[in-house]
Amino acid sequence: MVNIAILGYGTVGSGVVEVIQTNYDSIQKKAGQGICIKYILDLRDFPNDPMQEKIVHDYDIILNDKEINIIVEVMGGLDPAYRFVKAALEQGKSVVTSNKELVAKYGSELIALAKAKNSNFLFEASVGGGIPIIRPLNQSLTADEICEIIGILNGTTNYILTKMKQDGSEFADALKEAQELGFAERDPSADIEGYDACRKIAILSSLAYGGQVDYEDIYTEGISQITRNDIWFTQKFGYEIKLLASSKKIDGKIYVSVAPALITEKNPLYSVFGVFNGIFVKGNVLGDVMFYGSGAGKLPTASAVVSDIVDEIKHLHTNIMTSWASKKIELGEISESKKKFFVRIEGKIKDRLEEIERIFGIVNAIEIEEIENEFAFITPILTEKEFIQKKERLSGICNRIRVESE
Amino acid sequence: MVNIAILGYGTVGSGVVEVIQTNYDSIQKKAGQGICIKYILDLRDFPNDPMQEKIVHDYDIILNDKEINIIVEVMGGLDPAYRFVKAALEQGKSVVTSNKELVAKYGSELIALAKAKNSNFLFEASVGGGIPIIRPLNQSLTADEICEIIGILNGTTNYILTKMKQDGSEFADALKEAQELGFAERDPSADIEGYDACRKIAILSSLAYGGQVDYEDIYTEGISQITRNDIWFTQKFGYEIKLLASSKKIDGKIYVSVAPALITEKNPLYSVFGVFNGIFVKGNVLGDVMFYGSGAGKLPTASAVVSDIVDEIKHLHTNIMTSWASKKIELGEISESKKKFFVRIEGKIKDRLEEIERIFGIVNAIEIEEIENEFAFITPILTEKEFIQKKERLSGICNRIRVESE
Repeated sequence: MVNIAILGYGTVGSGVVEVIQTNYDSIQKKAGQGICIKYILDLRDFPNDPMQEKIVHDYDIILNDKEINIIVEVMGGLDPAYRFVKAALEQGKSVVTSNKELVAKYGSELIALAKAKNSNFLFEASVGGGIPIIRPLNQSLTADEICEIIGILNGTTNYILTKMKQDGSEFADALKEAQELGFAERDPSADIEGYDACRKIAILSSLAYGGQVDYEDIYTEGISQITRNDIWFTQKFGYEIKLLASSKKIDGKIYVSVAPALITEKNPLYSVFGVFNGIFVKGNVLGDVMFYGSGAGKLPTASAVVSDIVDEIKHLHTNIMTSWASKKIELGEISESKKKFFVRIEGKIKDRLEEIERIFGIVNAIEIEEIENEFAFITPILTEKEFIQKKERLSGICNRIRVESE
Repeated sequence: MVNIAILGYGTVGSGVVEVIQTNYDSIQKKAGQGICIKYILDLRDFPNDPMQEKIVHDYDIILNDKEINIIVEVMGGLDPAYRFVKAALEQGKSVVTSNKELVAKYGSELIALAKAKNSNFLFEASVGGGIPIIRPLNQSLTADEICEIIGILNGTTNYILTKMKQDGSEFADALKEAQELGFAERDPSADIEGYDACRKIAILSSLAYGGQVDYEDIYTEGISQITRNDIWFTQKFGYEIKLLASSKKIDGKIYVSVAPALITEKNPLYSVFGVFNGIFVKGNVLGDVMFYGSGAGKLPTASAVVSDIVDEIKHLHTNIMTSWASKKIELGEISESKKKFFVRIEGKIKDRLEEIERIFGIVNAIEIEEIENEFAFITPILTEKEFIQKKERLSGICNRIRVESE
């Protein structure tokens, strides 16, 4: 029997309790021994909850209990999560976390600390909710050098984009609906401005390339500027708009960004709709693989947390190697990266095409009957820098969105 | 440095050599030590190949070499693969295989033998080529009880069905094209009759449910009866025809089958086209996940083999637990399973609908202008047994295909 403590009895914490109770027997069989939840740390009390007897308010009780082998941090945020996790690892305890902020910021340090103590620091639930992606990257794709990861890593924004397309609604209305359904927070900025996806792609990139990718270095753009007209025009071109978190190795240089992008139906991420996540990985010998599933939610996330607990029980006092060194990876400049751009612009094609093609060369332009005095075009491939320079010479640009190469 | 021997220098064997050479440094880093290919067993010689110096024709040289820790069996077939693998495990060596026949038939025995000797028997490449699926099932989805696995597990048949749809070609022509392109064998029966997918779903089911699912017990039907007209009618209904290998736990009973089935675009397998494979898994707490990628091919398959080698190097003399007991799982009768059926039949709707609806109740029937004197309908949900009885009462049935529930 392995004793564990759960830090935080919120959505994920109560999900972890539920998963362990629901599948107790099968989990015990796979782990080789049973799991005993000895403590739950929370500031609150839960008088009518059967778990109330496990609730403690003082972390030191957990930290100083030599019977506790595994600590499950599901509080979120950096403070006190970082202090608590570090202290646990220093004591030789293993830690599981679902906290993407903590992992993105302190991942390499905490991994090294676990290694030095022959314990483990695992974080499958920090990216992609219930989708197995951290363990496959660490343990399955080991024969490959990863050259590309492209993910739909945020369910809230994917839900909003799906609703805008399906219902023809504007961004603000789709966001409001997502909030009413509990798919978006009351302060939605972490999701809609891309910060959540940014931390997740920082984690995946650090694991894939074996060094520290700082999330502060990642070019990040959210979906709040996307309008119904963008969706209509891009659909007419045969594209879907997705918030893509992308990480590519090109000529030895690593480019990471989070931004809305257009993809065609040939892209396996094309049919990832609603709150689902999809993560596409390209290896230099493997080719393309994709992982798909519920990117958030109480039970899927808890399922990933518990799978990490099982792995730590199977590896008590044996470190599971993870290649994420503290050496910082300098990212390539997005201004150098090359792509096509979708541009939505005021006016009529017949009046403006000549002006546009003088600047960009031949473009693919369309109008939509229902939308007056606006049209859209797709540029040839050019660098971000060139695009910005050329776009300065055009008036009346309503929006521009990058086109993901096929 | 770990010494390995490769049994069989065919497509996969030479791929394994290529992957190890191409990514030698990154593999060494992840494995913690380098890999030395000491022997390659093959009946043939390869005079102009740089690997010729490693070629041996006598398996005993490998078996008796105490320096060999890991044996990579990529010969295929049951004999001598089974004898060779068993002998290696008995000597305490670890084994990696890509051989689905071997794993489906002797998996539980060889896993138990490896466990008894504190070595490992791994087989990631036996299902889904380069797609990580065996390790995720064993090590990632450990918090869940698996309730459903549905896979497109054979790239050849998926390619043929995709071509039939895209080009409007008949089965025989699409098969011929697949053979010319090297996607189908000269004797294609293992693929087109579903035997290959049958062995693979037997392996996945055994792992998911922790007991022996014998492939001989699995109802298996191939795609050779599918015609262009079936594709046209099902498309008009909004379906794709896929060869689905399916394994479901319903009321404690396990139903496994391989058969063509119709799926809607809501199914994540809908957009798995060409030679790609997709594997959908449902867990009782996780919900739905899907794994997608190249299901075959030299390098993707070799990538999976080498990832197993890395795992074995990291776990020399430590068994990686796998829950696949030898206890046989009795499968549920397919005749009891319930679904809708697509039926293509001679005649005109106006002449036959009354007769059909007297037998089946209300059906959804369609005609296609270009196809004379044939139409198609979809039955209400009924058991396979009921369907067979009712269908006996109708003349002129051209084909029938099961409809996968949403």
